[in-house]
Amino acid sequence: MGNCCESAANFFGPQKNTNMRVSLPAVCFVWQIAMIVLFGVFIRYDEESDAHWIEYRRENNITSDIENDFYFRYPSFQDVHVMIFVGFGFLMTFLKRYSYGGVGFNFLIAAFGLQWALLMQGWFHALNPETGKITIGVERCASSLPGYVIVNANVVLNISCFCFHISSESSLFPQCRDAGGSMVIHCFGGYYGLAISWVLYRPNLHLSKRHHGSIYHSDLFAMIGTLYLWMYWPSFNSAITDHGDGQHRTAINTYLALASSVLTTVALSSMHQKRGKLDMVHIQNATLAGGVAMGTAAEFMITPYGALIVGFCMGIISTFGYLYISPFLEKTLKLQDTCGVHNLHAVPGMLGGFIGAIVAAAASESVYGREGLINTFDFEGEFADRTPGTQGGFQAAGTCVSIAFGLVGGAIVGFILRFPIWGDPGDDNCFDDEVYW
Amino acid sequence: MGNCCESAANFFGPQKNTNMRVSLPAVCFVWQIAMIVLFGVFIRYDEESDAHWIEYRRENNITSDIENDFYFRYPSFQDVHVMIFVGFGFLMTFLKRYSYGGVGFNFLIAAFGLQWALLMQGWFHALNPETGKITIGVERCASSLPGYVIVNANVVLNISCFCFHISSESSLFPQCRDAGGSMVIHCFGGYYGLAISWVLYRPNLHLSKRHHGSIYHSDLFAMIGTLYLWMYWPSFNSAITDHGDGQHRTAINTYLALASSVLTTVALSSMHQKRGKLDMVHIQNATLAGGVAMGTAAEFMITPYGALIVGFCMGIISTFGYLYISPFLEKTLKLQDTCGVHNLHAVPGMLGGFIGAIVAAAASESVYGREGLINTFDFEGEFADRTPGTQGGFQAAGTCVSIAFGLVGGAIVGFILRFPIWGDPGDDNCFDDEVYW
Amino acid sequence: MGNCCESAANFFGPQKNTNMRVSLPAVCFVWQIAMIVLFGVFIRYDEESDAHWIEYRRENNITSDIENDFYFRYPSFQDVHVMIFVGFGFLMTFLKRYSYGGVGFNFLIAAFGLQWALLMQGWFHALNPETGKITIGVERCASSLPGYVIVNANVVLNISCFCFHISSESSLFPQCRDAGGSMVIHCFGGYYGLAISWVLYRPNLHLSKRHHGSIYHSDLFAMIGTLYLWMYWPSFNSAITDHGDGQHRTAINTYLALASSVLTTVALSSMHQKRGKLDMVHIQNATLAGGVAMGTAAEFMITPYGALIVGFCMGIISTFGYLYISPFLEKTLKLQDTCGVHNLHAVPGMLGGFIGAIVAAAASESVYGREGLINTFDFEGEFADRTPGTQGGFQAAGTCVSIAFGLVGGAIVGFILRFPIWGDPGDDNCFDDEVYW
Repeated sequence: MGNCCESAANFFGPQKNTNMRVSLPAVCFVWQIAMIVLFGVFIRYDEESDAHWIEYRRENNITSDIENDFYFRYPSFQDVHVMIFVGFGFLMTFLKRYSYGGVGFNFLIAAFGLQWALLMQGWFHALNPETGKITIGVERCASSLPGYVIVNANVVLNISCFCFHISSESSLFPQCRDAGGSMVIHCFGGYYGLAISWVLYRPNLHLSKRHHGSIYHSDLFAMIGTLYLWMYWPSFNSAITDHGDGQHRTAINTYLALASSVLTTVALSSMHQKRGKLDMVHIQNATLAGGVAMGTAAEFMITPYGALIVGFCMGIISTFGYLYISPFLEKTLKLQDTCGVHNLHAVPGMLGGFIGAIVAAAASESVYGREGLINTFDFEGEFADRTPGTQGGFQAAGTCVSIAFGLVGGAIVGFILRFPIWGDPGDDNCFDDEVYW
Repeated sequence: MGNCCESAANFFGPQKNTNMRVSLPAVCFVWQIAMIVLFGVFIRYDEESDAHWIEYRRENNITSDIENDFYFRYPSFQDVHVMIFVGFGFLMTFLKRYSYGGVGFNFLIAAFGLQWALLMQGWFHALNPETGKITIGVERCASSLPGYVIVNANVVLNISCFCFHISSESSLFPQCRDAGGSMVIHCFGGYYGLAISWVLYRPNLHLSKRHHGSIYHSDLFAMIGTLYLWMYWPSFNSAITDHGDGQHRTAINTYLALASSVLTTVALSSMHQKRGKLDMVHIQNATLAGGVAMGTAAEFMITPYGALIVGFCMGIISTFGYLYISPFLEKTLKLQDTCGVHNLHAVPGMLGGFIGAIVAAAASESVYGREGLINTFDFEGEFADRTPGTQGGFQAAGTCVSIAFGLVGGAIVGFILRFPIWGDPGDDNCFDDEVYW
Repeated sequence: MGNCCESAANFFGPQKNTNMRVSLPAVCFVWQIAMIVLFGVFIRYDEESDAHWIEYRRENNITSDIENDFYFRYPSFQDVHVMIFVGFGFLMTFLKRYSYGGVGFNFLIAAFGLQWALLMQGWFHALNPETGKITIGVERCASSLPGYVIVNANVVLNISCFCFHISSESSLFPQCRDAGGSMVIHCFGGYYGLAISWVLYRPNLHLSKRHHGSIYHSDLFAMIGTLYLWMYWPSFNSAITDHGDGQHRTAINTYLALASSVLTTVALSSMHQKRGKLDMVHIQNATLAGGVAMGTAAEFMITPYGALIVGFCMGIISTFGYLYISPFLEKTLKLQDTCGVHNLHAVPGMLGGFIGAIVAAAASESVYGREGLINTFDFEGEFADRTPGTQGGFQAAGTCVSIAFGLVGGAIVGFILRFPIWGDPGDDNCFDDEVYW
């Protein structure tokens, strides 16, 4: 979710028009009215949130109201909202003069995105061909969360339609398991954002250098964001996994991977500075890499020590990225990656996709049990004949597709963003929200 | 919850006695000892929190411990506490020199209020006439939350007894449905607070002008409050609705209305300023109006797009209120409404009450199902013959009663507060907590 | 969790070596690799998080996935993590120049500690003698939370092994009930930390006086910590109590005690200052004493008014401690207790242990019901013959053992910490994290 500033930037001169008085209200109204119309046409309550539930319950021999999906998913659903609104929002406050922008625009875009994602995900995954309706409940809201994280992450300027279509398509990729979204959220979203940023390179961004830094209190606000992301990441990965052991195992695996990446992040951060001082940027970001990389595999029987190993490696890789790869990319590829999307999302997401593929390919009946294997990988219906090996292949292929769509989609969107019609600040005025608040 | 400062004020001169050394400890001790005695006389565990649960379970053929109400309500219960302690507390930190006061007094009053509300709500709604006891569990605590929000909101100076009695009486109004409290919390509480503030008009409040403003960091702290209120509002509205589809539908409706009001708030806020800049006050407050207005109707089958429409209108109305109505009221009616209680609580609450009335009146068996209709509106026992139309009438009447009790109650309390015995600061010292911390 | 600074201190001169460049990374790597190996050898999923759950369910006639322990414990589990990472972390930000250190080191140590505690608690309490494995799920993670709170609290310098062994041993003390850890967490941990601090007395700490204070914003950050600790303490105490009435009652009792201690804290704090002003230190800490003291007894039928009485007394005792006992201890015993561990943890924890003993001893079949008594105190198997009186005796004895182990263990660890090999700052540089960040 890092490139809120870069993607708002292009290389036209400093006399930019940051006046949002017409464009922002127009966009908000048009968008929201469109949502109301589309919701009116398509969206209805599902059987668990409809007043007919009491009859549905009796007909399906459901013994208790506690079997309503609400009680399986609502706590995770709320945790994920804390991650998106408080976590991402406050993580963005680390710049000394972009705190309002970080929290406020994140708020707006998330409120945008959650409605849009509900529709999009609904169209692609839950449209009832007979009634032409999408029925929603807490699970559908939760399963569209990944969607609006993508919207949230990458599309500062209300162009999500286009990119999102692509990402949804890619998530249609036949039957990859990707509950926590290593592939479709972090890997796709990361490369997508980097491609935009690459296209929108601002050669004179150093003119804004004076704003590009944190102060003691802004870093402390950012730690609120980091901690909520870190604590609730198990809820994020487990929000839409299978009832029972699925949610349980996903939460534990993510939890252990996160704990492990804290230690290696601290280690690398300390090794780099002369007197062993720690760097807030690493602590705020790389500690989360373990959760990103477990987005696909957490659902599987990766074993507790497997989760620790993943976290161990990710803490190292991500911190290493902040220390060496980001500066390298900026120098050689002209890639301005203020928040380190590459190190926290793109690379851990990609690796997470491949880890998922390996763990899936290594699955066996002896470890999962016969029914457990079917249950975990959904080897039912048209997939009844699939073997773990084939599943692993699909997972790996899905990851590659995510990268490709991310890079291509991002490049296209980037070129659109270069048209001088967007209200982005001049090169000497970046990292400062004074023009907006 | 806005008038923490105004209601602490009256118009006696600046040589005010802000020394709390005797009065505050005395009030705390007397109050808390009274609570202990009253709890000793009246309050017992209910069957779900009593050690006899294991026997109760067997006698009632409850198959599992998960059917204990704790598991239905506890996550919402905790979310609501976050709203009250962190949400309201930090929302109040927006003044640059009233942050301690905002968080600290909110903390004290909420701790006050939750005990008192548990008793009051218990007396009126849950007193067992045979044993003379009130039995409590998580549901009773949750259902008295509205109560202590009122206490919290309006009564800075421990006079809640009186006002609360009234509000409880009004909530006794036969069988209005008002799960999230549009009517009994926001509408009643809003007009009540405004009436107090009107009586306590301080003509020389401009002497405190130097403190009446925010700084960059204080507004950021306030955003913590806003975000938690926004995120957990679905839990607030659904905390005491029916198990199953009731809680599920309430949460989704509230969620959609909130999302929608963010967009229209941003739109109006941006339209007002010359260069389209956003105003933190609007983002912090008006974005919540959708949740306030869904306090009554969220439980009903308002449909997802209906919820979006409510949020759409409320964002506009509330922001409009901050821009034009508050200044107008201050000028013409001498109403000092620092936190915009009128725009966030009174008006959206009143409208929410009427929306609930309309949606209730429009209910039909075809939409709710036969059993669903009975279930949703509790058309059982003495209300078995009631029609949706009658229910709608009662809802509308209940809203009017709330307004009337709020205005009259507030005026009375305001006159009591004008006696010069309260430790409130002088006109030149408002909005500054230095005298208290 | 208070002595993060003291325990990092010893009395060797100001030319201290605070360079962590080698030691910190080495410790992190060695530790994390050791964890991976030990997890590989010992830790496996339990039957509720294993993919075999679907078969286990059928074999055990479990009718629904909602019976998976995940749904009983996960919301509390998450709340407790918020307490540890945000609550403790931000509570420590009150010093104006130790905010990074407070949040950051807390984060590191908690990530350390949770893995270690999972192993330790597993070895002592859940090692399967046949397979030689420890199986984990959300409940095991939650039940090891107390463990890593201890690690977190006391062991800044990775020497937790030793002390932890002792504490685990003491928690093995036959069949004391101590769900919320008044005894094994607060009482043990408090005295342990005080003993370390006593051994590590720094006669020249006044040289750091300039850093020893808060500023307006740092105290506001600390209030975030306080409020989360306060709100989620009911989850902490109830996280591992019995399903059904056990968790329900524990939450309610803790909740009432906390509310009550807010009022008496405010009263005492206001009585002490000349003009009745409140002191942030008391509001931030003593308000929590009610929760600490209910760690043992909350599970029992202490009655709602009993809980209020406990909170009432603890608010007084704890605030009194901050006002008079801490200065007295510093003067006479040379005990530097920056965060008031004595007043918030040691004393309320000890009293909580004894309150638990009294309430247990007073238990009777008429109050608990026959089955309820067995259920609440686990009078089954080898304890089938135990009477409430005996149980009370064991509880009291357990509290004494906790104190003894805390004092002795802390003294030993303190002497180890005096070796000049730790990277702690000089006496003139305490309370400042500039050397670390």
